[in-house]
Amino acid sequence: MDPVSPTAERLQRQFAFIVEVDKLKEIFRQTLLINSRRRENDAEHSWHLCLLVLVLTEHANSAHLDMLRVLKMLILHDIVEIDAGDTFAYDTAGMQNQHEREAVAADRLFGLLPPDQTAEFRALWDEFEARTTPEAKFAAACDRIQPMLLNINTEGASWRKHGITHDQVVARNCHIADGSTTLWEHMAAILDEAVKDGLLTPAVES
Amino acid sequence: MDPVSPTAERLQRQFAFIVEVDKLKEIFRQTLLINSRRRENDAEHSWHLCLLVLVLTEHANSAHLDMLRVLKMLILHDIVEIDAGDTFAYDTAGMQNQHEREAVAADRLFGLLPPDQTAEFRALWDEFEARTTPEAKFAAACDRIQPMLLNINTEGASWRKHGITHDQVVARNCHIADGSTTLWEHMAAILDEAVKDGLLTPAVES
Repeated sequence: MDPVSPTAERLQRQFAFIVEVDKLKEIFRQTLLINSRRRENDAEHSWHLCLLVLVLTEHANSAHLDMLRVLKMLILHDIVEIDAGDTFAYDTAGMQNQHEREAVAADRLFGLLPPDQTAEFRALWDEFEARTTPEAKFAAACDRIQPMLLNINTEGASWRKHGITHDQVVARNCHIADGSTTLWEHMAAILDEAVKDGLLTPAVES
Repeated sequence: MDPVSPTAERLQRQFAFIVEVDKLKEIFRQTLLINSRRRENDAEHSWHLCLLVLVLTEHANSAHLDMLRVLKMLILHDIVEIDAGDTFAYDTAGMQNQHEREAVAADRLFGLLPPDQTAEFRALWDEFEARTTPEAKFAAACDRIQPMLLNINTEGASWRKHGITHDQVVARNCHIADGSTTLWEHMAAILDEAVKDGLLTPAVES
């Protein structure tokens, strides 16, 4: 292949991006894996979300979800954390400038690709962040359900470590209902059980 | 929700499957991550494959690929390794009964789901394994390109550790051309460079 052909140039940019995002496997989250109890990384989390979508789509509020777009958003949604780092779901200080930091990261990382793909991937990330389309709402619901499941199955390890209470978990995760009322109802029942089982502290009385 | 309703029963099975496959994050492969040089696990690998598909689909031999089915196959393709373990691509002894061991694993793991999803996921895994549809051929191509890229970017660590030679890599990976002649041409050129750079040993003269 001519090394300066349009195809060669596209492949060079595409492979540079694929190699760069290997770093997502080194960005660690607060949630623990169920067996080894080590911290989960963003790449594993992203795969697990895709799996959730495959299994749980039937429960989405929208009966006509474009599953391919949901998966695309979830495959890409955390790549910005390669530069911006993971912001813990209950880190209210870190969340204040989170979007700004992540938008700069999106510029650099998606900018490695050929321009048409830079635009396509950025639009998917923006859609996920805006959480207004049915696809983005369901993707965001899956993104919240997965760490809750890991927490429940590690005796609430991440909640207990950070002193997170039931009301905080509900406030942070109730938007799951925007993507799936069935799944939010199910998760809310699981959270009630977690309180009963002592894995999650009830709201602190003020 | 009534705990014995059909929806409750489906959710119970679906969540049991989602929790069980968390174990994929603990199945380690021979390839090393580019930065930390630790071994990659199957969940990270599976996410990286999905990313490859998003970036490289335009190079597939088939212009009318069902990308959703490609992604579904790749999200599910390694789950059997939770029970069957990872078989190194050049472990000819391990590969002799690999499919048999993995089929037993597929029965157990996909069997955790509601029956309709057991059938759907098993069909996707069978399609990937048979490598006859355009979608399975492209998925399999991505599954071979990704570890090659990691090897190239870790100075051929896994090839050198196991004494793998250029002719072995070509024999094992040339079916990439069935999914994408463009990508195989590109990878073959990269392999030639790897030999020149001393990352990969040329074929041993017999």
